[in-house]
Amino acid sequence: MRVLGVDPGLTRCGIGVVDGVAGRPLTMKAVGVIRTPSEAAVAERLVLIERGMEEWLDAHSPEAVAVERVFSQHNVRTVMGTAQASAVAMLCAARRGLPVALHTPSEVKAAVTGSGRAEKAQVAAMVTRLLRLEAPPKPADAADALALAICHIWRSPAQNRLQQAVAAQRLKGTIR
Amino acid sequence: MRVLGVDPGLTRCGIGVVDGVAGRPLTMKAVGVIRTPSEAAVAERLVLIERGMEEWLDAHSPEAVAVERVFSQHNVRTVMGTAQASAVAMLCAARRGLPVALHTPSEVKAAVTGSGRAEKAQVAAMVTRLLRLEAPPKPADAADALALAICHIWRSPAQNRLQQAVAAQRLKGTIR
Repeated sequence: MRVLGVDPGLTRCGIGVVDGVAGRPLTMKAVGVIRTPSEAAVAERLVLIERGMEEWLDAHSPEAVAVERVFSQHNVRTVMGTAQASAVAMLCAARRGLPVALHTPSEVKAAVTGSGRAEKAQVAAMVTRLLRLEAPPKPADAADALALAICHIWRSPAQNRLQQAVAAQRLKGTIR
Repeated sequence: MRVLGVDPGLTRCGIGVVDGVAGRPLTMKAVGVIRTPSEAAVAERLVLIERGMEEWLDAHSPEAVAVERVFSQHNVRTVMGTAQASAVAMLCAARRGLPVALHTPSEVKAAVTGSGRAEKAQVAAMVTRLLRLEAPPKPADAADALALAICHIWRSPAQNRLQQAVAAQRLKGTIR
């Protein structure tokens, strides 16, 4: 399974591509950042993010895209831009028919470090170890994007089972 | 000047198209709503909004698009969806090379009613009067989208002069 993880942001969108299945060693395929100039208008920055996402999706053909779920409780200064960048990332994936999964920052931290409250450096250290890299990926947004992809690979079997169970119950009419 | 106004939202995106110039009677060209099903995943809903925006832009060929500026102080439950819907609206306009303007709710209210704190009903009443409609446009999101377009037509001469002044100062190197 190949997953493209996106740590959304208007200034820097971290992107990481990871191959693997739960329970087997993982492989980093690519990592990078889509940057947009802070002096540009928001609409122009969203066009640049769209273009960058299209290039990443074309180049790596992932089977799924995992995007960090944005919360409004975050820093109010940046949260709107983060929500807008994540919208473009989700849009690019969904209109190609790719499944889009959202994972919260604590789900990602818990997946790769065992603690939902781990610090950024700990996440980067575990990403480096799990992907057998020689040095932590930089910038931090890139490490977070790889962590998202890893989280998705490890969580998706459980998520799929859950979704199947919910769908089965819906068919029986026991839940709506 | 033809302006397409967008009152962004995941469930309902209000759209209004107005023709006119500041100081002359305005004409409503079209009004409506892009709806997406609340049970669909956010990524799918963004694809539907993109499709709807493309249809509106193709059908009406506006010269500018005005989108409500989303603030994070708003209702935290809906603000993320609103930010994401607005991102798709801005993206669709900007990648066609259309100028995208953002106006705050109080700028829009002040433009059409004279008060930045006017109630929704007052905005709808003024939109009805200014566009010489027989009844207030429905739903409310549609009236707000028309108000945005009107606000843009009336504010843009001042905005253009300001932007030109800023650009001139930049050239002289007096401001950055």
